Order: sequence, then C-alpha cells, then structure tokens
Amino acid sequence: MSNQKVRVIVNGYGVIGKRIADAVVAQDDMELVGIADVVSDWRIKIAVEKGYPVFASNPEAVDNMRTAGIPLVGTLDDLLKQVDIVADATPKKVASANLEKYRAAGVKSIFQGGEKHSLTGHSFVAQANYNSAIGRDTTRVVSCNTTSIVRTLGALKQAGLLKKARGVLIRRATDPWESDHSGVMNTIVPETTIPSHQGPDAQTVVPDLDVVTIAVVAAHTTSHLHTWSVELTHLATKDEVLAAFRVVPRIAFLQAADGVVALNSTLEMMADLGRPRGDMWEVGLWEDSLTVKGNELFYNYQVYNQAIVVPETIDAIRALTGIEQDGMRSIAKTDQAMGLVRDFVGRHRVITN
Amino acid sequence: MSNQKVRVIVNGYGVIGKRIADAVVAQDDMELVGIADVVSDWRIKIAVEKGYPVFASNPEAVDNMRTAGIPLVGTLDDLLKQVDIVADATPKKVASANLEKYRAAGVKSIFQGGEKHSLTGHSFVAQANYNSAIGRDTTRVVSCNTTSIVRTLGALKQAGLLKKARGVLIRRATDPWESDHSGVMNTIVPETTIPSHQGPDAQTVVPDLDVVTIAVVAAHTTSHLHTWSVELTHLATKDEVLAAFRVVPRIAFLQAADGVVALNSTLEMMADLGRPRGDMWEVGLWEDSLTVKGNELFYNYQVYNQAIVVPETIDAIRALTGIEQDGMRSIAKTDQAMGLVRDFVGRHRVITN
Repeated sequence: MSNQKVRVIVNGYGVIGKRIADAVVAQDDMELVGIADVVSDWRIKIAVEKGYPVFASNPEAVDNMRTAGIPLVGTLDDLLKQVDIVADATPKKVASANLEKYRAAGVKSIFQGGEKHSLTGHSFVAQANYNSAIGRDTTRVVSCNTTSIVRTLGALKQAGLLKKARGVLIRRATDPWESDHSGVMNTIVPETTIPSHQGPDAQTVVPDLDVVTIAVVAAHTTSHLHTWSVELTHLATKDEVLAAFRVVPRIAFLQAADGVVALNSTLEMMADLGRPRGDMWEVGLWEDSLTVKGNELFYNYQVYNQAIVVPETIDAIRALTGIEQDGMRSIAKTDQAMGLVRDFVGRHRVITN
Repeated sequence: MSNQKVRVIVNGYGVIGKRIADAVVAQDDMELVGIADVVSDWRIKIAVEKGYPVFASNPEAVDNMRTAGIPLVGTLDDLLKQVDIVADATPKKVASANLEKYRAAGVKSIFQGGEKHSLTGHSFVAQANYNSAIGRDTTRVVSCNTTSIVRTLGALKQAGLLKKARGVLIRRATDPWESDHSGVMNTIVPETTIPSHQGPDAQTVVPDLDVVTIAVVAAHTTSHLHTWSVELTHLATKDEVLAAFRVVPRIAFLQAADGVVALNSTLEMMADLGRPRGDMWEVGLWEDSLTVKGNELFYNYQVYNQAIVVPETIDAIRALTGIEQDGMRSIAKTDQAMGLVRDFVGRHRVITN
C-alpha cells in the first residue's frame, strides 16, 4: 500500500453521502478533500460544522449557497482537479450525467444503487467481486436491498448450500427524517410487478444466483425486513447454515429471545451501542427464528437502508484505486475503522478482522 | 330441504359475531333467534337498535346489562332450549368451555379459528370439506388467514397444479375500531417462530397440503396481505392458473392497473360498492401482478380478516344441520344472499351461483 492517501470527494451530501464522508474520514489510507452539493440548508451547514470543505456541485448553486452563509471553497470543477476518486451520491438521474464529467477530469468514480448497471458496466459488493473492480475507472455499489441479498445468498453459495432462493422484501415507506409526503400510512402497497427488480440486480454481481423477489411497501420508516425461503443443495442442519453466515463479513445476528423482536428494537440497540446516527451496517439476521426443514431454509433479516452500503463504498474506493489488492483485507480494514461486528452483544461478539 | 327454518343463535357479538348475525338474517332458510353477549356498551345497544333479541351469555352479566338499559330477553341457557345451532364467536378460551354446555343442551355448535382443532375434531372451509361436516354436532371454521390459504391453494390443488407453496403473511397489527394499545407503530414485528401456525392449520382441513408460512405484523389496520411462491406440478401459463382460481368460489380479482394498488384502495372500493361495513368476504387476489415463470407461480392477495370467515360459518350451519347436502349449492346460496362476486368491477363480474 502506498503511503500516499487516496484523495476522495463525496458529491451529494444526502442520506448516503454524509455517511460516506464520515466513513472516509475514519480510514487511515484516505483523505476527504471535500464534499459537494447544491442545497444550502441545515444539512450542508452541518457539514460546515464538522469542518468538511464544502463545494458547490454546479456553478448555478454558488450564489444560493453563499447567500445562505455557506463558506464555499469552490465548485466541483475546482475540486475534481485535486482528487483521485469521487463517491457520487447525488440523486437518481443527476448522477448518470456526472460520469462523463468525472472521466473528462481523469477522476475515478463510484455510483450508488439508484443508477443502472449499464452506467458503469460493473456492480459492486465487496465480498462478492472486489477483484473484478480493481483498477476500473468506475463501478456502482448496488442498493441496500441488493447488497443484503448478495451478502446472505453469497454466503450460502460460498458454502455450497444454495440451490434457489425466494424472498419477500417488506420495504420502509420513506426515511425517518423525511416529511415530504413520500410515506404511506396504514396500508401495505405491493409492487405492481412480480418479480421485483432486486433479484436481477443481485445477478449483476453474482450472475448465476437463482433468486426471485416480491416487494411491498409498508407503513413504517424503520428500515427494511426480508423474509426468505431457500432451497438448499442438500439436507443441512441449522448449525451448518449459521456457520455459512458466520464465515462471511457484514452479517450479524439478532436474538428475539434477547428482546430484539422487531425493526425498532434493533435500532434502539444500535443507538444504545453508540453507533453514529444509530447506523447498522451489517445485515441483522434473526438467529433464533432461522429454521431448517430438510433441504429448506427459512429466515428473516433487517436491512438498515441508510447505512448498509457505506462500508461497501469504502471498499470500492480501495478496489478502483488499487491501493489494496486483497478484498478481504480491505473489508477487515473498513470494518475495524467503522466498528462493524458479527454479534451485537454477548459472547460471540468479535470484531470482523 | 325442510320448510322449517334452522333456528340459530350467535353467542359473542363481536367483530365476527355481529357479522354472522347479519348473514344469518340474510338467509331464507335460517332464523336468528337471538344473540348473546356479556358486554353492555354501544356494541350491544346497536344489536338492540337492529331489533335482534339480546340475551346474556351468563347469569353474572344480567345485572350490568339491565342497568345499562339493555332489554334482555333472557340468558343463554333459556335460549339454548329454543335453537338448533349456536355460532360461537366468543373470545379465545371462553369458547372452549362452552362446548360441553351446548352438547348438554343438545344444540349443535360452530366455533371460530381462535380455537384449537382438537376442540371440535373437525375444521371447516366450505369448498374444501363441506361433506365431512354434514351431520356432525360441532366444527371449527378456521381463521381468516387459514381460510384464504385453503381457498387459494385448494384451487390450485383441485386443478392439479400444486406441488408446494411457501407464503409470507403480512398481518394487520389490530382491527380498525380498536384503541386498546394492541397495535404497533412504525415497525415490523416478525413472529419469533418459523414456520408460523397457519400452514399446519390449513392441513387440518386439507391434510396433504405442502405449505410453509412465515408471518410478520406490520403497522397498519387495513387487513392482511399474503405473498406466495408456489412450485407447480408442471409448466403452466398464467391463463391456466387464473382459470384454476376462477372455477372456485370466494376468490375475486383485484387490478392494480385499475387503480386498486394497496390494501386501503381495496377497502375504499368495498365501501363504494355499498357493502355492509365495507366488508370483503372474498380473497382479493391481484390478477395483473400474478406471475408464472416456468413451473413457479408468484402472487399477492388481500385477506379482509373481519369478514372472510362469515360466509363459511353460514355454510357450516347448513352442513352440521344437514339442511343442504350439497356444499356447492350451499356456497352458491350463501354467496347470492350476501352478495359475493368473482370480480368487483367490470366485464367479468358474475354472481357466484
């Protein structure tokens, strides 16, 4: 590894972007050169409070941001001259127009799961395909739901257990901080198309996954719940399945018997653990209700949509820039710096690396 | 069929009981002799308003009910001397103690799905096992969720299509009229045991069903949503599957393309159709999102928990008393009297019989 830190910028300081910025700062081989956005409200003022150099994502935003008292260092164009890589967390449709700008500036780029696979030609989940991202100029970190699918089904596949998987995704309606009428109340809204897009999206990372998903939106904000029915390649025990999940990173276990009985109790536990913003970066998989019947496996897990892709983005930075050639070493380094665990409480608690 | 109407009493005038009472009144071969309960609030006063003879379910309740101004006709014991059959919709645990009382009075009885199969030794869904209930002294109409499972998987089985089915039940937290802190807010609560009980419960009606269910509770009151992944016995088309659902009663189709996109839009449609209490007695199955891939079938449907078992209870009355020996004729008669349909709107709308 070079002694020179990778110079990173985050373009789009929203739900994902602000978390990526903090995670970059936590790494000893990266430097956050700045963050860029177009808004001028409290969200960006917090970035100023944290001491992050703030840039305008486009020249049109400069006046508004200056008028609002944001001490702008410059614009994205200025910033691109100084960095190796940009983590783009701008909204869907904005992001795709940015790729050519990054390429013209000779800066590598990472997009988020709202973008299409075709934008970058490569989709990324660290534990599945770190190697194929090494040295590329761009990749896409897949969405929160897809990331969780690749982590869990990837673990079963790696253990030679996976034949096919059928999942139901009970999605949160909107994020907790939102108040823009994007939520739903007192209903369940099934997606009008079956299968939902997450199965094919997982196949952009692991092409031969036999996976089908059905998705619905529910009347809550406390992240997603997935339920899975998996056909195994052979008769297996619960211990065998748990072992398959335990040998891969970024899956941690929840225990209903320990009082963690619902999405909201998990999140309260994250807050009590002192995690930044109460984030859960791991797939939170309920160990006690996980059931094996013959060659069939059933389980539920929680996907904290606001944070799960953040460690993946950090690894993507190392892969594209080539500062770490070994994916598992990058994952261990990221997880150590951010504080990921395999069990949240109790005797199994072990730091990933 | 005898010219003598079957004399029916409803014991327990709650969510299910009040609907059974109305449905009995709608039948030309049944007479509602009275309803019995122990409460003395608005719920029972509405029964008085409707002109139903009101009885006290036990002697201890008499004073309270009289003090509240309920014009009691007598007690359950008086009532049992005058009737052929009792539909028991009292709360769990109360009901099971009643069976011996009914037997001692020589009165047939029907229990609801909160009771165990072992209480009656027979569990009932009209289209599946009407025949085996004929002449029995008691049966149990299975729960709303189980009824929907038997109707839908029973249809696939009858068409020779069903190999195995894996379902996820996204349950409403509590009923819309409740305010007793039994709900949940802003979370999903997965059941701590997989599989949930509904699979084995369906097997009490159709023993050889290969079915496994996972259940969660969500933060809404607008009935249940089920999602299913079914393995078929052979490659099939969507039309073949729809035909299998169409030839059985009490499944009706919902169209997302027609704007029926969620649990609450369905319920608004029921209200606009002028249905009593906005009830949906049919399984409301989304036709347009139903998907067949090879020998696999995926679909979502809505279970209106407050009403779906009511037509089943009417048929159980005919089966136990033997006034109708043909289950499909009973179903047609019930559905005609109550107003069940195969399609809620549009060209396919056909009354069941």
